[in-house]
Amino acid sequence: MGTIGTIFLSEIAGTAMLTLLGGGVVANVILGKTKGNGGGWLLINIGWGLAVFAGVWVAFLTGAHLNPAVTFGLLANGASEYGPGIPVTAGTTVAYLLAELIGAFLGAVLAWMTYKNHYDQETDAGTILGTFSTGPEIRSYGWNLVTEIIATFVLVYVIIMFGNTPHQLGPLAVALLVVGIGASLGGPTGYAINPARDLGPRIAHAILPIPHKGSSDWGYSWVPIVGPLIGGVLAGLAALAF
Amino acid sequence: MGTIGTIFLSEIAGTAMLTLLGGGVVANVILGKTKGNGGGWLLINIGWGLAVFAGVWVAFLTGAHLNPAVTFGLLANGASEYGPGIPVTAGTTVAYLLAELIGAFLGAVLAWMTYKNHYDQETDAGTILGTFSTGPEIRSYGWNLVTEIIATFVLVYVIIMFGNTPHQLGPLAVALLVVGIGASLGGPTGYAINPARDLGPRIAHAILPIPHKGSSDWGYSWVPIVGPLIGGVLAGLAALAF
Amino acid sequence: MGTIGTIFLSEIAGTAMLTLLGGGVVANVILGKTKGNGGGWLLINIGWGLAVFAGVWVAFLTGAHLNPAVTFGLLANGASEYGPGIPVTAGTTVAYLLAELIGAFLGAVLAWMTYKNHYDQETDAGTILGTFSTGPEIRSYGWNLVTEIIATFVLVYVIIMFGNTPHQLGPLAVALLVVGIGASLGGPTGYAINPARDLGPRIAHAILPIPHKGSSDWGYSWVPIVGPLIGGVLAGLAALAF
Amino acid sequence: MGTIGTIFLSEIAGTAMLTLLGGGVVANVILGKTKGNGGGWLLINIGWGLAVFAGVWVAFLTGAHLNPAVTFGLLANGASEYGPGIPVTAGTTVAYLLAELIGAFLGAVLAWMTYKNHYDQETDAGTILGTFSTGPEIRSYGWNLVTEIIATFVLVYVIIMFGNTPHQLGPLAVALLVVGIGASLGGPTGYAINPARDLGPRIAHAILPIPHKGSSDWGYSWVPIVGPLIGGVLAGLAALAF
Repeated sequence: MGTIGTIFLSEIAGTAMLTLLGGGVVANVILGKTKGNGGGWLLINIGWGLAVFAGVWVAFLTGAHLNPAVTFGLLANGASEYGPGIPVTAGTTVAYLLAELIGAFLGAVLAWMTYKNHYDQETDAGTILGTFSTGPEIRSYGWNLVTEIIATFVLVYVIIMFGNTPHQLGPLAVALLVVGIGASLGGPTGYAINPARDLGPRIAHAILPIPHKGSSDWGYSWVPIVGPLIGGVLAGLAALAF
Repeated sequence: MGTIGTIFLSEIAGTAMLTLLGGGVVANVILGKTKGNGGGWLLINIGWGLAVFAGVWVAFLTGAHLNPAVTFGLLANGASEYGPGIPVTAGTTVAYLLAELIGAFLGAVLAWMTYKNHYDQETDAGTILGTFSTGPEIRSYGWNLVTEIIATFVLVYVIIMFGNTPHQLGPLAVALLVVGIGASLGGPTGYAINPARDLGPRIAHAILPIPHKGSSDWGYSWVPIVGPLIGGVLAGLAALAF
Repeated sequence: MGTIGTIFLSEIAGTAMLTLLGGGVVANVILGKTKGNGGGWLLINIGWGLAVFAGVWVAFLTGAHLNPAVTFGLLANGASEYGPGIPVTAGTTVAYLLAELIGAFLGAVLAWMTYKNHYDQETDAGTILGTFSTGPEIRSYGWNLVTEIIATFVLVYVIIMFGNTPHQLGPLAVALLVVGIGASLGGPTGYAINPARDLGPRIAHAILPIPHKGSSDWGYSWVPIVGPLIGGVLAGLAALAF
Repeated sequence: MGTIGTIFLSEIAGTAMLTLLGGGVVANVILGKTKGNGGGWLLINIGWGLAVFAGVWVAFLTGAHLNPAVTFGLLANGASEYGPGIPVTAGTTVAYLLAELIGAFLGAVLAWMTYKNHYDQETDAGTILGTFSTGPEIRSYGWNLVTEIIATFVLVYVIIMFGNTPHQLGPLAVALLVVGIGASLGGPTGYAINPARDLGPRIAHAILPIPHKGSSDWGYSWVPIVGPLIGGVLAGLAALAF
């Protein structure tokens, strides 16, 4: 298998793992009649952190971006490679971005299959959409964008810092970082901090046959794309200072 | 002691540790008058994750399967050995499976002894069974099976990936993975993801003299056996792609 | 400083750290007007686990027993030394036991000082004692003893297993183990699993001038001493099988 | 860039990360209409622990003090350097202290920007101040001071112990220590344990244009400065005993 094929296989698998587990924990907490119903924000934060943990293992071979904000952040940082032996070219960049989006879509479909019975009985459209994509608690596009920029900056900046320092934590480091970002910065918008993680599941929401599903809220959908991309690029540039 | 004897001793001890601590945390959260009563889903997830953590340490010598889905997953993956110096043969395979089931049964008995006073005062049959074995929130054998297949696929696939990548986390990695699977995919069926973990305690439930215990729900019992076995084998095969 | 002096200084400091943080988290959750009031069982489990984490760092030099059940467990296991360069003799054994008890007493005094304002306003005697020592939810000395034996067996057995396997987790492994024991086996008696951790603070409770404190419940006090000692010795003997 | 410049850049960035994530998690839990509203004390403890985790990575290059109590604790301990290759001089000491204060101020401003919509709708002055700086549940300067001294002693003493023992946990060790201190000793005063973490955000609170903000409670502000400094120095001196 060539480099492009490896990127596709690895990043699709890893990002699917990410949104399967990430979408799953939200479904568990907010859909009706689940065992985790009403389990709280910390449960969601830990679930998403461990979704990243599992996804990073799965895509270890290609550096486990799983996130266009990471891909663009590395690009802005002038990285010499995207993963072990994977050059930074237009072709590999596009492969990462496409694989991330496709994987995020597939993971959302798997999460829906996992919770099929519960989706069928859920009657609140907002709850259903909330298990796929993020949305703001107080809608205000400008400040929502600021929140996503800051949260993604933290993600990508600290990830780049990991690479500069010795440690033995492996994927646990980024998992804990994501738990922390969710706990601390996820309150206003639900911390997309990843355009693929939000857009892929939103497309799945639009396509899947779910009773009582409402709008996919495309009006908000640009915020969790643009915000994370700006935050990731700023982080890649800021990290050049060191 | 020969290889078969070592497998028995080690995997019985490890799987007993697994269901002692795993059954214990559910008893703590759902039985009456305990200190952890009403402690929530995250407490259960963390308790089960650390049950795996302790069990893996105890059975380190034999690779710590603790789970027929792992044994069959490794078999499907074409593993060259089951643990350090333990060959993959019909004899060792059967030894793992038997030891896992016996261990899971013994752990459930120990958990019952630990919470003896509380079992004696519990009057709800469903609560009592829930501390031994899993059950679905919405009964629908087909989709319940899908949920167990997906959740076990994640478990076995990521465990196999651990082996392909350098890390220093040891048993912590699989413990965290199990916390994540419980948080994200455990909502519909209670994440058996392990035929022995479900069947061994169900047998204990059928045998132990517990006041007010009801049916052991044998009608559902095949789901947490068949689902995890399918999921484990699929994961072993899928991991061959890399 | 000689070996005996080092044991005293190190184990007193470590065990004081243990009961300062361990008593502290219970005070935070159950005393009135604290920021952690009503924080739940998982908060207590994590607090105690990290109390062990901090205590083990502090007493690293002497193997960080912090617990007579560990000292006796190692003795029963036929350990060649108690810590790096510390021989197993009658003298060192007594030094560990005394230091553990003194340290546990001092830590409880420090926890009381930390929460002084809250103790002064607390009017429930059971709540006050609960921040110092353990007590059963359903009083039944025989089964309470069984619970403490099983829980301490798990503690000491897995700690001895740590020593037989390579890992990089250091004190984190035992901290996580204690979180798991609390979550899973702490429901009936509050998991003393350590005679010093229970007796030292109980003496502090009897001595300290706390308004509205009631009985120190000496009638129960032998259970969290005898149970852990039996469990620790059984674990040391059982681990000889490997 | 010279040593002083590196200290400034690194410690400002690290301490800003600390108070951005630390202030953020409190805002998420106590401000209205957030996704983490009412998430509880453990969520706050984990959020602050991971704030330290991220901050330490960011300031790894300079030893990641992030806290004047650490700087003074190392000074009292007679440390030969403040970080890799950074000498202990009057100049470097002042650089650390200033950078810590400036960083803590900037992080608080960023946390306010992240939660801007929620601050604008919050009408309770105590809640608003609580997202910036600490305050006691029972006001009693003497005992509040004792609480901060003990909690900071634990922080700095155990951090110094980390340096004397082999481990592979890196920044995770101090993150877990901070989770533990918050869980166990944070109940009375909210565990400032860091003069910069409290004073920097308090200045931000005084300056920022927040509707319905009340007093910055300067009457209490000396406690979380003086207490942590005393605790840090005592820890540095006590650690000399080993």
